[in-house]
Amino acid sequence: MRSRRPPLALASLPLPGWVGAWLARHASGPVRGDAARMAIAIGLARQNTLRGSGGPFGAAIFERRTGRLVAAGVNRVTASGQSFAHAEMLAIALAQRAHGGFDLSRPAHELVTSSEPCAMCFGAIPWSGVARVVCGARAADAEAIGFDEGPKPRGWVAALEARGIEVARDVCRSDAVAVLRDYRDAGHPIYNAGD
Amino acid sequence: MRSRRPPLALASLPLPGWVGAWLARHASGPVRGDAARMAIAIGLARQNTLRGSGGPFGAAIFERRTGRLVAAGVNRVTASGQSFAHAEMLAIALAQRAHGGFDLSRPAHELVTSSEPCAMCFGAIPWSGVARVVCGARAADAEAIGFDEGPKPRGWVAALEARGIEVARDVCRSDAVAVLRDYRDAGHPIYNAGD
Repeated sequence: MRSRRPPLALASLPLPGWVGAWLARHASGPVRGDAARMAIAIGLARQNTLRGSGGPFGAAIFERRTGRLVAAGVNRVTASGQSFAHAEMLAIALAQRAHGGFDLSRPAHELVTSSEPCAMCFGAIPWSGVARVVCGARAADAEAIGFDEGPKPRGWVAALEARGIEVARDVCRSDAVAVLRDYRDAGHPIYNAGD
Repeated sequence: MRSRRPPLALASLPLPGWVGAWLARHASGPVRGDAARMAIAIGLARQNTLRGSGGPFGAAIFERRTGRLVAAGVNRVTASGQSFAHAEMLAIALAQRAHGGFDLSRPAHELVTSSEPCAMCFGAIPWSGVARVVCGARAADAEAIGFDEGPKPRGWVAALEARGIEVARDVCRSDAVAVLRDYRDAGHPIYNAGD
């Protein structure tokens, strides 16, 4: 697997094979309201756990006004061998692919994530142009099952709001936490670099 | 360009076409010492500016002990339409591709970047397993030409060091700053989402 020459392209990074059909079943029409949008993110996290395709995290990007699902992501770190492959990063990148450019500010989009963003995903949010972030489980909930949330500023919500990005927390939190606990109880890996 | 169906894979993301030949000329053998490694990162940033292939930022990952260049990255945000496509993110992702897995902690690797990491790249560093980060220009230098470094914690160096990641700053800083100024003086775009 080790190449002696520096690779010159990131490989294509697919979502798990089940995602397309699952989205067609659950988000083919407009999805309205925080709870319904969060149910998609949590459903992706749950399926990713049940099917063993990655960590217990799901995210989705919606057009804010219409409720159209633009893109979805699930955690694919171990499957892809890429540490950036968090659910939020993939959802943002795929939304930008669908949008045809990196700036998701027009029309307004929102990121809905089953767990609060880690330090990397937090830092990625302003660069995407999303207008709003909706979170299920708290960072402390992910940490409680052994995941590391990284060196995120304590005032991360205020830091996003200062940039005009709204943040909603604790949306369907107990459902989101149930997925995290199921993942741990099933004995799935908690992967952190250097362990 | 707008797709109505959520895309199910990130597209392959290539570095600019000139990178392979440039690396073969400048980093085919071991690269020893911070200044020589930084010269590669700054050279990538400079070439990316001169050739108009992206923002004035370059990065490289080296095996710490041997000085082997494992992977390189340049800023490709506008070219790829992906806001995560910062030089450091691509260098890390490509190093993980070369390494055959996401954990760059064994053997020890280091990230050398022409400018201090933004909030996203800072948050990505612990997930990669790199043992050390070497920085050229300061965040303030990039901000001075209009780039936004994002909501990075004020104590970001200490936060990395607390995780066992060494940080070296101001390595060939004036050379790195010269690339930033050349970029601005050439009238190249300062892209920030929502502008």
